[in-house]
Amino acid sequence: MSLHIAIVGSGQLAQMMAQSGRPMGFTFSFLAEQTDDITCVKGLGDTIIRTDQTPHTLFSQLGEPDVITVEKEHVDIELLTALSKLTNVAPNTRALEAFKNRHSEKAFLQKQQIPIADYAVVTDKASLEHAISTLQKPIFLKTQEEGYDGYNQFKITEDNQHTITQEITFPGAWVAESFVAFDREISFLAARNTKGDITFYPCVENEHHNGTLIKSIAPAPNLPDAINKEGQTYLKRVCETLDYVGLVCMECFLIDDKLIINEIAPRVHNSGHWTSKGVPTSQFENHIRAISGLTLGNTEQTLPCGMLNLLGVTVTARQVEGANNFLTLYGKATKPKRKLGHITVMTHSQAETKTELARLHTIAYSPY
Amino acid sequence: MSLHIAIVGSGQLAQMMAQSGRPMGFTFSFLAEQTDDITCVKGLGDTIIRTDQTPHTLFSQLGEPDVITVEKEHVDIELLTALSKLTNVAPNTRALEAFKNRHSEKAFLQKQQIPIADYAVVTDKASLEHAISTLQKPIFLKTQEEGYDGYNQFKITEDNQHTITQEITFPGAWVAESFVAFDREISFLAARNTKGDITFYPCVENEHHNGTLIKSIAPAPNLPDAINKEGQTYLKRVCETLDYVGLVCMECFLIDDKLIINEIAPRVHNSGHWTSKGVPTSQFENHIRAISGLTLGNTEQTLPCGMLNLLGVTVTARQVEGANNFLTLYGKATKPKRKLGHITVMTHSQAETKTELARLHTIAYSPY
Repeated sequence: MSLHIAIVGSGQLAQMMAQSGRPMGFTFSFLAEQTDDITCVKGLGDTIIRTDQTPHTLFSQLGEPDVITVEKEHVDIELLTALSKLTNVAPNTRALEAFKNRHSEKAFLQKQQIPIADYAVVTDKASLEHAISTLQKPIFLKTQEEGYDGYNQFKITEDNQHTITQEITFPGAWVAESFVAFDREISFLAARNTKGDITFYPCVENEHHNGTLIKSIAPAPNLPDAINKEGQTYLKRVCETLDYVGLVCMECFLIDDKLIINEIAPRVHNSGHWTSKGVPTSQFENHIRAISGLTLGNTEQTLPCGMLNLLGVTVTARQVEGANNFLTLYGKATKPKRKLGHITVMTHSQAETKTELARLHTIAYSPY
Repeated sequence: MSLHIAIVGSGQLAQMMAQSGRPMGFTFSFLAEQTDDITCVKGLGDTIIRTDQTPHTLFSQLGEPDVITVEKEHVDIELLTALSKLTNVAPNTRALEAFKNRHSEKAFLQKQQIPIADYAVVTDKASLEHAISTLQKPIFLKTQEEGYDGYNQFKITEDNQHTITQEITFPGAWVAESFVAFDREISFLAARNTKGDITFYPCVENEHHNGTLIKSIAPAPNLPDAINKEGQTYLKRVCETLDYVGLVCMECFLIDDKLIINEIAPRVHNSGHWTSKGVPTSQFENHIRAISGLTLGNTEQTLPCGMLNLLGVTVTARQVEGANNFLTLYGKATKPKRKLGHITVMTHSQAETKTELARLHTIAYSPY
């Protein structure tokens, strides 16, 4: 068994998956869009640029992979469905489809009796007005597909609610999400393999900046056991219902110890980057183990960890040096807001980790 | 500070150093001999093949590195001395020279009052006969340079002592080492940076097969504190005397809790491979931190580790799968005795780690 794995995508997540899988004897290839940056995966396997190839041609160009996986949510379900007739696709297209679209995601979660925030589907002026009048403001109006990290979003407030309708054009497919006055944002990461075994990572507390993750703390400090169990129960249900295979991330809000599920990312996730240092088996290795049917690796954390994202900024090893600081740059060209790397901090106490993250935050972002 | 580092060598140690340094924003190049296998470093930087270039040309071909380091003991000291006039060489040539030759190594250790086994320099028939008559048998006769992993060695026993002289040809430069009836073999690893800071890894217990390391257990079980301190004192003395910069390994014998130093490897070492999993900062990352003048990383171990070398044999991820098993293959072609990879085991107890290592040993080697 020396698997060949194709990854849809060519960014840092694909990079880290391949870096985890290659020492296991696996080979990789990558499927990139014409506009994708492919520097991250250079030297890790062949990169095939998507043009108008047939699924058969693509399968052949990708080196007839034993399994095809993804590093992003915005994938061509039709293509993957066609490819799934030629080889294994993990996670399966049913799961990818469920979470690609915000409406189908919310409908799926509701059907599974998993708590989500109030929302309304917006497809025309009337449904937009109805959403504005019924949901708690500020309302976040998001496209059903493609939007992420704060892109393709409108914020509807008491102030702009009467004028916003002029900014939105129809026809369009949107979801209006009610404001959630959350105390904290947390995420659950799990890996489920082809045998149906499931392993959880310690729950993570996250901090976002303009819709993009900037900091994680693991484990989430003072998380009630009941919340941890509840979140794991939901995520297990999601995985089992969809026969999900791979790493999955469930992003949540916490309000007065009430758990609200925000969204599911069917892939390795930025809030799990600390796992490359803080647990024996990183999220990347467990994703590869999961999709190749191997026993999942130990995810037990021994030291408190923190992660600072480098968004549009880069640092030198010297600037952020420290016995407990670990720099990971992805090798990409600098561009505003672009994820260029992250720093993992691992100390003996969460207080120390937080202090160091704050210090590194100032170093990385102060000039901006 | 975005350093460019050249590594003399192109094997798995160079590979793992580069893999550790690239996420820190550093770039790499490699200097290989014409007969060297360079597959390990493919995609990690340019590889320059040594022919008859001048040091200036080599320096230029290597991309004018900010620092040159090594992955092996058998290096061209003359070349490195010339290169050290153009850029930093770490470890320095004085250290590399001291440990390249078994005779100078032993003389150096003796001068530092570090206990070593009885030995004799053998350069002709008379000195060989003298060694045979004075040293405890079996005697290991090793070439002063080039021999390692059991190559270029003769074993002189009571039985063959009268005929062995016919097998050895002179002129030659040999060292005859007295038999050491050791109870255990252990190794100390440390990193020392350009600022003079030094960090130790937990002491490791090793098992060799035909002169080559096959298993390590970290930390060395039930090691008396006094021995640990004694070993660290010696290694610190070695580093400070030579102004050593980088990762260094000191291999020792233990006889009734008496420490005998066998040899010093001025580089990252096979007995430290478990550090890629078992401590926050691997030996490879600390070597890179050390030679680039960065703060050394935390080396505190949280779970017992074990390492099984894959010598001339390879395995699939499926064959050695387990929640606590981590496979690292170097991507080299199979060849008898060749180091092709290793498996790290990390459990909650040393007993469990040993049992699992034994099981994996059977899986990897039983067909041979």
